[in-house]
Amino acid sequence: MTTHRFAPTTWYNVLGTVPPALTIASGDTVITETLDANGFDKDGVHRMSGPNPMNGPIFVEGAEPGDALKLEIIRMTPNRATGWTRASLAGNVVDPEVVRELPARDKVNWAIDRQALTVTLDPPVKGLEHLVLPVEPMIGCFGVAPALGQAFSTATSAENGGNMDYRGFGPGATVWFPVATEGALFFIGDCHATQGDGEIVGTGIETSYEVEFRLTVEKGRKLVWPRGESEDFIYSVGNARPLDQALQHATTDMMNWLMSDYGLSNVAASHLLGQVVRYEVGNVYDPAYTMVCKVEKKWLPARVSK
Amino acid sequence: MTTHRFAPTTWYNVLGTVPPALTIASGDTVITETLDANGFDKDGVHRMSGPNPMNGPIFVEGAEPGDALKLEIIRMTPNRATGWTRASLAGNVVDPEVVRELPARDKVNWAIDRQALTVTLDPPVKGLEHLVLPVEPMIGCFGVAPALGQAFSTATSAENGGNMDYRGFGPGATVWFPVATEGALFFIGDCHATQGDGEIVGTGIETSYEVEFRLTVEKGRKLVWPRGESEDFIYSVGNARPLDQALQHATTDMMNWLMSDYGLSNVAASHLLGQVVRYEVGNVYDPAYTMVCKVEKKWLPARVSK
Amino acid sequence: MTTHRFAPTTWYNVLGTVPPALTIASGDTVITETLDANGFDKDGVHRMSGPNPMNGPIFVEGAEPGDALKLEIIRMTPNRATGWTRASLAGNVVDPEVVRELPARDKVNWAIDRQALTVTLDPPVKGLEHLVLPVEPMIGCFGVAPALGQAFSTATSAENGGNMDYRGFGPGATVWFPVATEGALFFIGDCHATQGDGEIVGTGIETSYEVEFRLTVEKGRKLVWPRGESEDFIYSVGNARPLDQALQHATTDMMNWLMSDYGLSNVAASHLLGQVVRYEVGNVYDPAYTMVCKVEKKWLPARVSK
Amino acid sequence: MTTHRFAPTTWYNVLGTVPPALTIASGDTVITETLDANGFDKDGVHRMSGPNPMNGPIFVEGAEPGDALKLEIIRMTPNRATGWTRASLAGNVVDPEVVRELPARDKVNWAIDRQALTVTLDPPVKGLEHLVLPVEPMIGCFGVAPALGQAFSTATSAENGGNMDYRGFGPGATVWFPVATEGALFFIGDCHATQGDGEIVGTGIETSYEVEFRLTVEKGRKLVWPRGESEDFIYSVGNARPLDQALQHATTDMMNWLMSDYGLSNVAASHLLGQVVRYEVGNVYDPAYTMVCKVEKKWLPARVSK
Repeated sequence: MTTHRFAPTTWYNVLGTVPPALTIASGDTVITETLDANGFDKDGVHRMSGPNPMNGPIFVEGAEPGDALKLEIIRMTPNRATGWTRASLAGNVVDPEVVRELPARDKVNWAIDRQALTVTLDPPVKGLEHLVLPVEPMIGCFGVAPALGQAFSTATSAENGGNMDYRGFGPGATVWFPVATEGALFFIGDCHATQGDGEIVGTGIETSYEVEFRLTVEKGRKLVWPRGESEDFIYSVGNARPLDQALQHATTDMMNWLMSDYGLSNVAASHLLGQVVRYEVGNVYDPAYTMVCKVEKKWLPARVSK
Repeated sequence: MTTHRFAPTTWYNVLGTVPPALTIASGDTVITETLDANGFDKDGVHRMSGPNPMNGPIFVEGAEPGDALKLEIIRMTPNRATGWTRASLAGNVVDPEVVRELPARDKVNWAIDRQALTVTLDPPVKGLEHLVLPVEPMIGCFGVAPALGQAFSTATSAENGGNMDYRGFGPGATVWFPVATEGALFFIGDCHATQGDGEIVGTGIETSYEVEFRLTVEKGRKLVWPRGESEDFIYSVGNARPLDQALQHATTDMMNWLMSDYGLSNVAASHLLGQVVRYEVGNVYDPAYTMVCKVEKKWLPARVSK
Repeated sequence: MTTHRFAPTTWYNVLGTVPPALTIASGDTVITETLDANGFDKDGVHRMSGPNPMNGPIFVEGAEPGDALKLEIIRMTPNRATGWTRASLAGNVVDPEVVRELPARDKVNWAIDRQALTVTLDPPVKGLEHLVLPVEPMIGCFGVAPALGQAFSTATSAENGGNMDYRGFGPGATVWFPVATEGALFFIGDCHATQGDGEIVGTGIETSYEVEFRLTVEKGRKLVWPRGESEDFIYSVGNARPLDQALQHATTDMMNWLMSDYGLSNVAASHLLGQVVRYEVGNVYDPAYTMVCKVEKKWLPARVSK
Repeated sequence: MTTHRFAPTTWYNVLGTVPPALTIASGDTVITETLDANGFDKDGVHRMSGPNPMNGPIFVEGAEPGDALKLEIIRMTPNRATGWTRASLAGNVVDPEVVRELPARDKVNWAIDRQALTVTLDPPVKGLEHLVLPVEPMIGCFGVAPALGQAFSTATSAENGGNMDYRGFGPGATVWFPVATEGALFFIGDCHATQGDGEIVGTGIETSYEVEFRLTVEKGRKLVWPRGESEDFIYSVGNARPLDQALQHATTDMMNWLMSDYGLSNVAASHLLGQVVRYEVGNVYDPAYTMVCKVEKKWLPARVSK
């Protein structure tokens, strides 16, 4: 297994079928530095216009439509002392008539302490002088090229992943994407120092990162939506609007997962989900919202050998 | 402060302005036994037709429109050895075309072990023989009479509470309701042995309970939506469809709470919520869905004296 | 058949089970004067606070749960020279971030010419000096008491009708409501001089009216949602949020109607609706939105005798 | 002005930036034959897999980002004696639990009488023997390449048009698309013999057509969404889910149109729309729904010279 240091010179605002910037073998590790959501690098140099410029795509040898691309997020190291957010709740997360009273969506600076791994408003904001948040790294936008030759803006998400802005996509997470093109064509960028559920100010704390990850092809998995695994949970990810539909996608996918990989009938899957399911809101800001449907591993039956 | 043992002989399928069954002083404690969602009591006797027959209403002296009624859930003791659920995911939580393949919505029995405080499918279901769930008591439906002389079915929820089916409403939780009528008129019933997020089979494990709680009037709080507090979080509750709108209501209410009680500007409230908010899905089954907007107490500034 | 002149002295802000103000026989005609949405009568006297004070309820002898109450709207005569609207699109009908730029929701006056049956902004508004609209009378809020002893605010709508704000509910229309209580308990008010689809400024041109209508009990119809008939169309009415769900309710009801009354299979009903259905947006402002599902009579097969 | 006979040999399942198949001058006319939604031509030969294979793209000289591409639909002639539909309402247009009872989504044949311009189920379906529908030609899927190098499946729609499935897009209609790439890159296909509102069986009567249209560049129009004009109406088109959001997009665009081209203030635009707006449901089947916001021309003030 090889480790590649990947320093792109071009970036993309879409996830689509474009020429690969790097070709790797299945199981290889990649270390790369991502730009922030507006395209600024670790030195504050503007390298590419937004939204969410992507490093990639990475062509993974052997990946074919119908396979899954497994991503292991090994390490995320913030490589800049500043991040930024917006100063107002987004219009779509409050009651419509209340939008009239929201503040301006100014860009606001945060200081990132890379020794302490904390982040604070800089300059401080009255009433929040106490707010010293831990850095909780996450990838906002990543995924593979979609099917049919489609190409989707990095502002949104779909079956192929994309701008899901889910807090759970940090170091230690494993994520699977449905491969729709030869080589899968993996893209990554838009990392956050931290973020609340839903990305409800329209940003996490946007900054640049050094990210280390491993990509592995799993043949013939026939996924529909992204799936993930943390230390304690497995989860399915639905991307759509409204949130109800994102939840329908994620729940349907989890039911199918429990039936195909854990041998449950649809009745048993219903019983299990009905009493133990957990949902997390990825984002409720982007054109497609993201809902995560989780099951704690301790409740799972043994996997069916296949 | 008095403790009342309240044994109702009539039950209601609405939360509305009906004659009080019990009158108490603010700060009094009540112990009562609730029926299950179909109206069966601890002895399996059918006392009232569904949905969700309510004990109450309890008239709390001194409560007037504009006040809050504070509920402290002190204890919930299951008083029956059986509960029941439905055997299929609800049609509205999966992709529409997948509904064609869902199993029948049969009523299914669970055994409640009141010593071990566990609950298991009875008879067992293939693939779930290992599933021994802890009893995690919660109140599915409770609240006060709504404004304007309205009366809402116990199948749904609104500003006054009602059938919110949120897992968090268990022992140790404190909940505030906006008082809209003289005496508040508090109703309670529909308790569950446990439930996953969203109540996605249309039920938790439905059973009867003995519940002990305290009701206290807080003058002039002028709430719009129910609010709650657990050991670590404060939270606002929005009830509506789609889930997006429930989220808008809860988020708006939390922003207002941070501004009025914690002295934050709308900019500061946006910053705080943007990076630390957590959402939980109450239910996505009832006519109105329930979304809970949470802030961990460790991130809150000091309360403003008022 | 008797004609009743009904001059109420009390009004309601809910549709619910309250004491009847008038009792009539099935097939009787009623003439009554309605208040405007804010409770002002034809003389500009404030008689009752809003929202949408209702005349009624009218107890129709012989009406029982499971029956339909048939309403024929015979005549609607505006009885005041003024109406009013709001000066801004509602926040929920534009893109959320655009709400920041909407004008204030000021109350605006319109002059109603009862000879010419036209209505004009008074004073005129720049750019709209040419705008002389025909009076197209419609009932904004009407219906019967809901089931289970529920009572719903006249701000919203449900299976029992209520504040549907559909342009089509004017003279010549026939509307059926599902009876849920003894006597049906019919309510009416909130009439408009005209209104666009969706009531997107939150009002039609709100004014007082003299309304003449006939109420007839149809036994055992077992309706779920309101239904209507105009000269050329039959239609089903769904009330819910989001608009998608209102459309689901209306479409389901129309499919059922075609199957039960016109003898179609679900395949034939699908074919017919698929190629000839028409939808109209009632309102997209009230808590429940209203979608109307229409089929032109010329496409209907013969009714099945029952 | 030249008339081009355009006989493509390749087709696309996306609207995106792909090599032009034809280059024309602004104002030229094109005559082309489209495949049906499954890729069958006028002779029943399968030329390309679905969904909705597109003829094109057509590069229109002089078109640049920020311009509008004006399409005039001159003529649509069905060139085959058969069309097809699906035999069931789509799962997403009925109440979720009702989906369990829907019939199979079989493919069903219709006979197109090209002399009489009528269309009938073939073989007949019981109860619908009387159903002889007029051919009302419409284009299901057409539009231009989207911005940023994106490419969208012909199953869905967005700012660039696409699979809007709106009944109004037939002969006599004029449609404007926002140009996002050099040459606009116009695509067209998926024509229907007729269709109800909403495309609620998931298809219109799908068939092949000869279509004649004119494409003209209008410089610097800076559109966001497609717009159209019929004999009596102007209209804006919003594409999104849920239907509420499609309606928000269309209404916002119409408000902007009234302000920029007709000189109205936002107050005057609110008054006009509030009392005269009409909505039509394009489709409620595709991944993005389509809502059309219409204003009758007789209510418009004079256009502002610009």
